[in-house]
Amino acid sequence: MADQLLNERDIEFLLYEFLDTEQLLQRPRYREHSREIFDATLKTARTIADKYFANHNAKGDANEPSFDGETVHLIEETKQAWDAFAEAGFLAAHYDFNEGGLQLPEIILRASLATVSAANVASAGYPFLTLGAANLIHSFADEKLKAQFLPPMMDGRYAGTMALTEPDQGSSLADIRTSAEAAADGSYRIFGQKMFISGGDQSLTDNIAHMVLAKIKGAPPGVKGISLFLVPKFLLDENGEPDKRNDVKLAGLLHKMGYRNTTSTVLNFGEDRGAVGYLVGEPHKGLAYMFQMMNEARIGVGVGAAVLGYQGYNYSLQYARERPQGRLPSNRDPQSKQLPIIRHADVRRMLLMQKSYVEGGLALCFYASSLFEDQRTAETEEQRRNATALLNLLTPIVKSWPSKYCLKANELAIQVLGGAGYIREFPLEQLYRDNRLNPIHEGTEAIHGLDLLGRKVPADNMAGYGLLQCEMRNTLMQAKDIEALAPLAAALEDALEKLDVVTRSLFGQMQQDIDRGLANATLYLDVFGRVVVAWIWLRQALAAEGALSASVSMEEGNFYRGKVQAARFYIEWELPEIEAQVALLTSGNMLPFEMDESWF
Amino acid sequence: MADQLLNERDIEFLLYEFLDTEQLLQRPRYREHSREIFDATLKTARTIADKYFANHNAKGDANEPSFDGETVHLIEETKQAWDAFAEAGFLAAHYDFNEGGLQLPEIILRASLATVSAANVASAGYPFLTLGAANLIHSFADEKLKAQFLPPMMDGRYAGTMALTEPDQGSSLADIRTSAEAAADGSYRIFGQKMFISGGDQSLTDNIAHMVLAKIKGAPPGVKGISLFLVPKFLLDENGEPDKRNDVKLAGLLHKMGYRNTTSTVLNFGEDRGAVGYLVGEPHKGLAYMFQMMNEARIGVGVGAAVLGYQGYNYSLQYARERPQGRLPSNRDPQSKQLPIIRHADVRRMLLMQKSYVEGGLALCFYASSLFEDQRTAETEEQRRNATALLNLLTPIVKSWPSKYCLKANELAIQVLGGAGYIREFPLEQLYRDNRLNPIHEGTEAIHGLDLLGRKVPADNMAGYGLLQCEMRNTLMQAKDIEALAPLAAALEDALEKLDVVTRSLFGQMQQDIDRGLANATLYLDVFGRVVVAWIWLRQALAAEGALSASVSMEEGNFYRGKVQAARFYIEWELPEIEAQVALLTSGNMLPFEMDESWF
Repeated sequence: MADQLLNERDIEFLLYEFLDTEQLLQRPRYREHSREIFDATLKTARTIADKYFANHNAKGDANEPSFDGETVHLIEETKQAWDAFAEAGFLAAHYDFNEGGLQLPEIILRASLATVSAANVASAGYPFLTLGAANLIHSFADEKLKAQFLPPMMDGRYAGTMALTEPDQGSSLADIRTSAEAAADGSYRIFGQKMFISGGDQSLTDNIAHMVLAKIKGAPPGVKGISLFLVPKFLLDENGEPDKRNDVKLAGLLHKMGYRNTTSTVLNFGEDRGAVGYLVGEPHKGLAYMFQMMNEARIGVGVGAAVLGYQGYNYSLQYARERPQGRLPSNRDPQSKQLPIIRHADVRRMLLMQKSYVEGGLALCFYASSLFEDQRTAETEEQRRNATALLNLLTPIVKSWPSKYCLKANELAIQVLGGAGYIREFPLEQLYRDNRLNPIHEGTEAIHGLDLLGRKVPADNMAGYGLLQCEMRNTLMQAKDIEALAPLAAALEDALEKLDVVTRSLFGQMQQDIDRGLANATLYLDVFGRVVVAWIWLRQALAAEGALSASVSMEEGNFYRGKVQAARFYIEWELPEIEAQVALLTSGNMLPFEMDESWF
Repeated sequence: MADQLLNERDIEFLLYEFLDTEQLLQRPRYREHSREIFDATLKTARTIADKYFANHNAKGDANEPSFDGETVHLIEETKQAWDAFAEAGFLAAHYDFNEGGLQLPEIILRASLATVSAANVASAGYPFLTLGAANLIHSFADEKLKAQFLPPMMDGRYAGTMALTEPDQGSSLADIRTSAEAAADGSYRIFGQKMFISGGDQSLTDNIAHMVLAKIKGAPPGVKGISLFLVPKFLLDENGEPDKRNDVKLAGLLHKMGYRNTTSTVLNFGEDRGAVGYLVGEPHKGLAYMFQMMNEARIGVGVGAAVLGYQGYNYSLQYARERPQGRLPSNRDPQSKQLPIIRHADVRRMLLMQKSYVEGGLALCFYASSLFEDQRTAETEEQRRNATALLNLLTPIVKSWPSKYCLKANELAIQVLGGAGYIREFPLEQLYRDNRLNPIHEGTEAIHGLDLLGRKVPADNMAGYGLLQCEMRNTLMQAKDIEALAPLAAALEDALEKLDVVTRSLFGQMQQDIDRGLANATLYLDVFGRVVVAWIWLRQALAAEGALSASVSMEEGNFYRGKVQAARFYIEWELPEIEAQVALLTSGNMLPFEMDESWF
């Protein structure tokens, strides 16, 4: 692994210069906090990431979990990592003081988790899933379930999972078949099979709380009949301690390309007499509840993708600085000293492209995280409502853009190393294999394209879309006044208009024929993502130019100039690719849709 | 693996409709052949591929070669595959009858090898490398070496390798350090270390002929001082049989992301008293000789990339036809039957995109293979010279374009399967891992960009470039007369003009400053590749439209309509992306080049 996890200076920039995280301290929830506490939290996360997660990232990949028919075996470092994470309080950090938490803001937790993911995304899977499951219980379960399951999930005795997918349905939740029958004691009996359940079994915790989507017998068809159940691995005895095995069986482990140290499982519920499950919240509202978890998880996927890209960037940058090879074309003297490969134009292109993807991706995720915070703790109701509208709009992009482009960053990092990038003796090929999951889980690109164009943009009379336009125009106004940024602002303004034209054109097409109108939604997602990330980069450049206008050290100056150059690169090299895409979309080019199946 | 290797109908189309392979029968070298012999050869290759290569593609990946300090162990199926390939005569098929060969044309051999690669690219590595090494010996070695090494390489008793790369140099051959000292008996003693040597050791053959680049003491610096040596693993006794070990030691195996069943080795030459090597050809001409092998190998890499993409396309297409999931957006009835996912617009896009990449890539490689044939056996000297000029120009594209886009096809195939694409229980993730090597070996994309813009396009007063323009304009003329193709021809004509503008602009930039002028050569390679493949697709569409103008069966009609639709897709969806690239190139945008190292 690269010597550093992410880039401390960049995290600081994103939190305190690109975003204004310090202003959170003025909000009532954070009055007892300080910048020092935030920074100490980040430092703790970095220490744990370094010591307990980075140490077995490669080992966990080479020695993936195994199942002997009884027990799942993980390399022992996984348990040490889990314990260290729990002991540092990160499983409870975002809850209020009076709930036993540290009352930390979302963005500080998110930045902390980012560092842990950067160290070892697979071992980070267990605590991350547990955080999500606990949040669901916290938000929707009754007091009894909360009392039974939340405390041990907050201190690391229990873990949690998210059990949605079934063998016959992945993307189409309407068609899940897992069923629930009411039992006399008010609990339910769950029957069905779930697949691709991450962390579905392990040897880390005393119990696992599976958050299972199932349909109560007689429920309405489709997504309106889905309920959410907590199905524990072990049933609790009268003292609330794990006792007998519930009727949940591990049918087997799946063997992934990457993310290997996170178990991926097939679980059978109710093979014998029915798995005992407890209804969470009201019947038939399971999907809405699950979406809370999914939306958080989707930001998590974006961050995961960004940090895997970031680690590849770090490593390939370090390699390019150190590896001598070849000379400039102008130098024809084979006896002259070879240059470090960072001096070659194409290596620089690959590094700058990676920088624009990974720092752009992480900035996008952190921005989303700030919206997540604002929707809960911003001062006015309007601010909170606006944050929700913006976050809902941006979630498909926050999930999909880093998953696509930070994966591409990993490909570029491999390419910088050449043959060394292709062998397991170097860390890059694992990063790529790990990252390849991100465009798939928590909704494929296609799903998010449909969500963006079909739901999120039109939602509430385009409220979120309108807000985003305002935010962007606000940035444009500021950037236009700065000489170095004015051309970038002009390019983004032009792109913004194109996005508007294409959006309205697609709405027209959707009104005529919804299937055709949505046929190119993935392309629209890509256009939208590029425009948003161009804006994120312009905002970073604005912060950097602001800092450069004062007197800064040479090192600081270099950092800020790198930000400005990456913003220029993104806007001059990447953003213009939307033109061809916009032309296809507005002309209603339906070639793929019109490809007859028999022609393949 | 997908049920089928490549697509027999498509291979037939490429050989006999897109290309006119049958006209080879009129050339003196092939007078004793017939279409039936060609087809029987292809069928033999398919049988061997199916029976001896496809059978252990996954197994060889899961059980990679190991080295116990003495011997390299391969799964036994590898040896059976090697033997079957050799016994069928494919190691000798392209040599003349009087040399013990089958006097087969390059294109038939190439298509045969393509099928074998599709079945198992890693196990195919051993015979492919042997073919290349034997060709070098055949072309440049003296009669004694030929007599000693060619026959056993043609019948499968010996294998060959290509030993260029060293730990401290991969792309910069000028800097190799392996040295050669003349010995009293006329042989040489070789000292040095080579790395990433594929097939550098194995347990398949009685001997291995390493084709080693080294510098004779006192040779000129740089590439002008490189000589080529044959360094056998075992020295031959007086009867010409393998006897004592030469001083070539396997320092260790490298562990690749994919292509696992091909050993990748570090070899130490001359640790003890010097490895015995035999000069091939004249001193200091090694690089020129090696380039013959490399140019063949580069077409081979293109084919390998294309067929790995093809197998992913086949599998994901089959999966998409069979896997039910979800409904069209217009269908809001959750109780209605789910559709096979091929009915979803974005799945069709991913399939059509794959089709355009893999069939386009394979057609490009087969076209190059026909040029390779023409440069040897075309009737007139002018035809042969023109074929050489065109092939030299196109080699960087034939190597790089499939490596980039057919890898992307594998990514798309994974995405079509979703979670199933990500697990080793399905064949797609291996295809991706295997294919990731192709943009790296035999020259990275950057190397080929520099080669294309810096050498191949300007070569001989742009002779190859001029010929390509003529070929393309010839296709345009024909396409313009066909209603369905006229718009595609217009788009390609426009692109051709853009390519011309950008080429002349870059030449101007190179004259001013060669380092800056070549800085964006990789981007130029991509533009050039897209234009060439658009032309390849238009040529395929022309052949298809020609066939459709006669009466054809429904099945045949569907095949041809698929070709036309894929051509339209490539030209309408992919080609326009050059516009933004051309704008960057002609404006001389140097952002990556100008990124200071200290700003990263």
